[in-house]
Amino acid sequence: MCTTNKPPEYWMKEAIALASYGMHRGYGGPFGCIVVKNNQIIGKGFNSVLATNDPTAHAEIVAIRDACKSLGSFQLTGCDLYTSCEPCPMCLGAIYWARPDRVFYACTKEQAAEAGFDDAFIYKELDRAPNERKIPFIPLQIPTSDKPFQDWKEKEDRTNY
Amino acid sequence: MCTTNKPPEYWMKEAIALASYGMHRGYGGPFGCIVVKNNQIIGKGFNSVLATNDPTAHAEIVAIRDACKSLGSFQLTGCDLYTSCEPCPMCLGAIYWARPDRVFYACTKEQAAEAGFDDAFIYKELDRAPNERKIPFIPLQIPTSDKPFQDWKEKEDRTNY
Repeated sequence: MCTTNKPPEYWMKEAIALASYGMHRGYGGPFGCIVVKNNQIIGKGFNSVLATNDPTAHAEIVAIRDACKSLGSFQLTGCDLYTSCEPCPMCLGAIYWARPDRVFYACTKEQAAEAGFDDAFIYKELDRAPNERKIPFIPLQIPTSDKPFQDWKEKEDRTNY
Repeated sequence: MCTTNKPPEYWMKEAIALASYGMHRGYGGPFGCIVVKNNQIIGKGFNSVLATNDPTAHAEIVAIRDACKSLGSFQLTGCDLYTSCEPCPMCLGAIYWARPDRVFYACTKEQAAEAGFDDAFIYKELDRAPNERKIPFIPLQIPTSDKPFQDWKEKEDRTNY
């Protein structure tokens, strides 16, 4: 468990401050995020989609990448993540891959939708069969499709993750 | 629609080749992805989680970021994405934010799971209420929570995206 001698509200203020900072400077939408470990901010991010032309540069992704760089690890064990808003499916997925101990979020999905950021459609698309999605997902096996997986299973020096 | 004079199998071979390349060199798991526009590969990626200590460095995320850099845009209009395996929830979310025209995938989630890459648990977690997830998602409103959203709505020079 992430240890901290400050109340969660203290850290959340930092995430909200980053949301304002990035938005006012034109980096992207009004979203901020920090990662905390042992009373320290080890990663921070604000939405930078517009400034970097990177659709994956959501606050949580930026903060997770920053924190992992600080730790030299792709796992956020012992860390808490504070985000100014409930994560979208992409960021939720990233959180599961990074595995922090806990996630604190301020605004809800409904508040985000009210401000023009509606990710409900992605949640709905996730539940659809690949061929019924708005963006067509087309299965295309070729003879060598499974070769990388077979090689991986036989790779003697592989790192499981 | 993305125009191409080569069959989809041609492009998929490239994605599979990247999966093998990255895996054999220890960058990460056996996953590769390319983005195609007007008969050209404008973005490529292989899983680089291990080499970069970045849990978000899945093949699709890397390829999307690369393609967006090439185009100078956070939207992949007119592009097709070819991935060696059905995307995880994080990458599926990223695909929706990037909005390529179509997605072609080779291996299925089931084949990935059989090779030790099981993201079914994330799909299940997405459907759970925040407080019932394996990683606790804790709502935490503070007095300034909604301020960035309010400011965004009033921002006169905002770019909607």
